[in-house]
Amino acid sequence: MKDNFRNIHKVISSYIDISDKEWACYASKFRIQEFEKKSIILNEGNICRDVFFVNKGLLRVYFIDNNGEEKTFHFALKNTFIADYESFFKRNPSNYSIQAMEDTSIVLVSRDVLEHGYKVLRNGERLGRLLAEDYLFICNDKLLAIYTQTPLQRYHNLASEFSNIFQRIPQHYIASYLNISSVHLSRLKSNTNKNT
Amino acid sequence: MKDNFRNIHKVISSYIDISDKEWACYASKFRIQEFEKKSIILNEGNICRDVFFVNKGLLRVYFIDNNGEEKTFHFALKNTFIADYESFFKRNPSNYSIQAMEDTSIVLVSRDVLEHGYKVLRNGERLGRLLAEDYLFICNDKLLAIYTQTPLQRYHNLASEFSNIFQRIPQHYIASYLNISSVHLSRLKSNTNKNT
Repeated sequence: MKDNFRNIHKVISSYIDISDKEWACYASKFRIQEFEKKSIILNEGNICRDVFFVNKGLLRVYFIDNNGEEKTFHFALKNTFIADYESFFKRNPSNYSIQAMEDTSIVLVSRDVLEHGYKVLRNGERLGRLLAEDYLFICNDKLLAIYTQTPLQRYHNLASEFSNIFQRIPQHYIASYLNISSVHLSRLKSNTNKNT
Repeated sequence: MKDNFRNIHKVISSYIDISDKEWACYASKFRIQEFEKKSIILNEGNICRDVFFVNKGLLRVYFIDNNGEEKTFHFALKNTFIADYESFFKRNPSNYSIQAMEDTSIVLVSRDVLEHGYKVLRNGERLGRLLAEDYLFICNDKLLAIYTQTPLQRYHNLASEFSNIFQRIPQHYIASYLNISSVHLSRLKSNTNKNT
């Protein structure tokens, strides 16, 4: 069991100072769950009851736009947290769905556990603040990218943040993430390969 | 001076429990500044060195998109906080500009003051977390609105959140906020008025 929580321990320790005793108490409340490739971890319309830490594998966050089309909003890589935070904190129906892109192992942190952490960890509130700030930066970057970057710039940014993306994710999800057609994405890839 | 901080005291007290003694110490470090209508409070490319609390008046947050057009991102109303949080926390050049839409009075909270608050207020980190979460919800709602709402839905949402917007903000800024042309906005308004 201990090994399952090694990654999340490392990540949380990079945010805050946490003693071994604090960690043992906090981590005893985490759950771990394995999901097969293509499993749905959160369904749009359901309340998001956990924050998900990707221990191994890869998740895709998506929603349905006003044309009824599925749009990929975010890829959550190993060693990152993901949730529909608005649904999680406000207990509203989720606007997003989350799906495993590969066989994926997740550490689940429920709201009760998170709130318990705010109270009992010396730096619990600080951890919450830093995680909220990080996710705020992700949302802010996505918003700005929609308005201020061309599809080619968004493509380069994705490829540089996520080096083996084309081996791990089907092309139509990447196109949907970039908000372009699969044909447009093929053209970008082929032009980029010609120029390198 | 005390009266200048009555609004921010009320808002902060709605987030956390803060004693009179704590408040007196914290608020002694705030600055207040008056800006005339149309003044630029933050220029894109500069580092955002303060969080701004709108004590009176109204601010507009905007940026330049990849067609060189100005896009209004957010209107910050009285009794709300605003900043380019990414620039503020990471000390990067700001991606946004902020302008006073009316004669506006602002309480400025510098990063040093905010960080001092994290340490000395019993609930300083909690305040930071709750403010970050609130701004995260704003960004998340904006992102979803772009993809999942029609211009008419966005128009209704804006009008319901901000009842006298058409008396206070020139139409072209509202159109830019809704990401539609001024002609399109006039048509929406006129259709809405006909139906009410």
